[in-house]
Amino acid sequence: MPQTPPRLTLVLGGARSGKSAYAEGVIEACPGPWLYLATAQSFDAEMAERIALHRDRRGAGWRTRDVPLALPEALSEAQGPVLVDCLTLWLTNLMLAEADLAAASEALAAACRTAPGPVALVANEVGLGIVPENALARRFRDEAGRLHQRLARLADRVVLTVAGLPLVVKPGATP
Amino acid sequence: MPQTPPRLTLVLGGARSGKSAYAEGVIEACPGPWLYLATAQSFDAEMAERIALHRDRRGAGWRTRDVPLALPEALSEAQGPVLVDCLTLWLTNLMLAEADLAAASEALAAACRTAPGPVALVANEVGLGIVPENALARRFRDEAGRLHQRLARLADRVVLTVAGLPLVVKPGATP
Amino acid sequence: MPQTPPRLTLVLGGARSGKSAYAEGVIEACPGPWLYLATAQSFDAEMAERIALHRDRRGAGWRTRDVPLALPEALSEAQGPVLVDCLTLWLTNLMLAEADLAAASEALAAACRTAPGPVALVANEVGLGIVPENALARRFRDEAGRLHQRLARLADRVVLTVAGLPLVVKPGATP
Repeated sequence: MPQTPPRLTLVLGGARSGKSAYAEGVIEACPGPWLYLATAQSFDAEMAERIALHRDRRGAGWRTRDVPLALPEALSEAQGPVLVDCLTLWLTNLMLAEADLAAASEALAAACRTAPGPVALVANEVGLGIVPENALARRFRDEAGRLHQRLARLADRVVLTVAGLPLVVKPGATP
Repeated sequence: MPQTPPRLTLVLGGARSGKSAYAEGVIEACPGPWLYLATAQSFDAEMAERIALHRDRRGAGWRTRDVPLALPEALSEAQGPVLVDCLTLWLTNLMLAEADLAAASEALAAACRTAPGPVALVANEVGLGIVPENALARRFRDEAGRLHQRLARLADRVVLTVAGLPLVVKPGATP
Repeated sequence: MPQTPPRLTLVLGGARSGKSAYAEGVIEACPGPWLYLATAQSFDAEMAERIALHRDRRGAGWRTRDVPLALPEALSEAQGPVLVDCLTLWLTNLMLAEADLAAASEALAAACRTAPGPVALVANEVGLGIVPENALARRFRDEAGRLHQRLARLADRVVLTVAGLPLVVKPGATP
């Protein structure tokens, strides 16, 4: 991990691949306070447990703001280091709310361009399995793939976490 | 992307990871005309839309030939730069037609060895999810994996696209 | 592949990505005899065929020991080069047996720390597809991800095989 993180980092990874821990490390390399923009909604016990686990791991120095939908607005208001965890749940929430995905993606890209940073975006890579039989799942991975490509173009640094380790897909400029 | 593409490039990637766009860039780096060997068959509206989208993105300078099954024959006749998009649908078509997969794989490998090139092969990486419950899907990812390994051995350059960016798995010789 | 393999190598990869062949090459680079710790259980014809295929590929010089559950014990008794193939089936067996996964993971980590080596561990990366609808499958990929992260921290070298080629995730020390 670079000592001074680049302005915009995209952290992709599979389930339980260490995405969030890596991204927390990126942001905690900067002076705090750190802002955690959380997109998870706890509909069930499994998700509630997962949210609590992530929250416990983050220590003092973190402020958390729940933004299941209004992520672009929150990111555009942020002043210091920000962790967005995660884009995958945000996209899920948007689809469940039947929101305008193109407009939301454009708003998030705009916020990424203007945020002073550093910003670390966490997202699940979901497109490397067999084509899902479920049409909604197919649409989801198409939308996720498009969003990731768009943000990867804007990002200074892109990594794919594998077993807790980062594979560098786009190296950040070393300042 | 190297200025002069190697003779044979294999572009693997997940859904919406930028495989086709990357491979188009490889071929368009050569003087045209460029041949597009298309394996997609539009059984439904979803696929028809996807085919139209890819076709619109490719500009003038491309000739398209539809080869849902006869890909090896078409590739062995090709004279200049060729994009094969994609091996995954070709394999799907072969399995639906109950074709001899071993013979088809051997014929494609032979065509890859003799094509003057440059040739770029696009394929979906489908083996990095949970084991599918569906036996046909399990067989499909086994066959796809075997085909990818065979072609990766022949290829000068292999990349895995992630969020539109290439992870180099096998670097091509720099001529 | 390094000439002298590091003490502990973790080989992750998708279905039919060449994980086992790569790991066999790592171990066969050392003087034999080589120990193969096999975790597969042949419940059906598909699995029996797969086991036979792997066994045929390995030549003389290999001793095989079947350890569907008692992998940590077998690894801690091993004296020379060892291939563990694979962690994914071991974890499956543990879950089917309703074993204590935390204790099993701790015992395997302890055996990895003390084995003289070289040891190569093979595992399927299963977390890069769409979230499974099946709760057991979701739990499986969570447990697999945690196990991989733990062993990746201990490993000197971690690779992700793609189409038979290794992407280096953690480079081993060059001795």
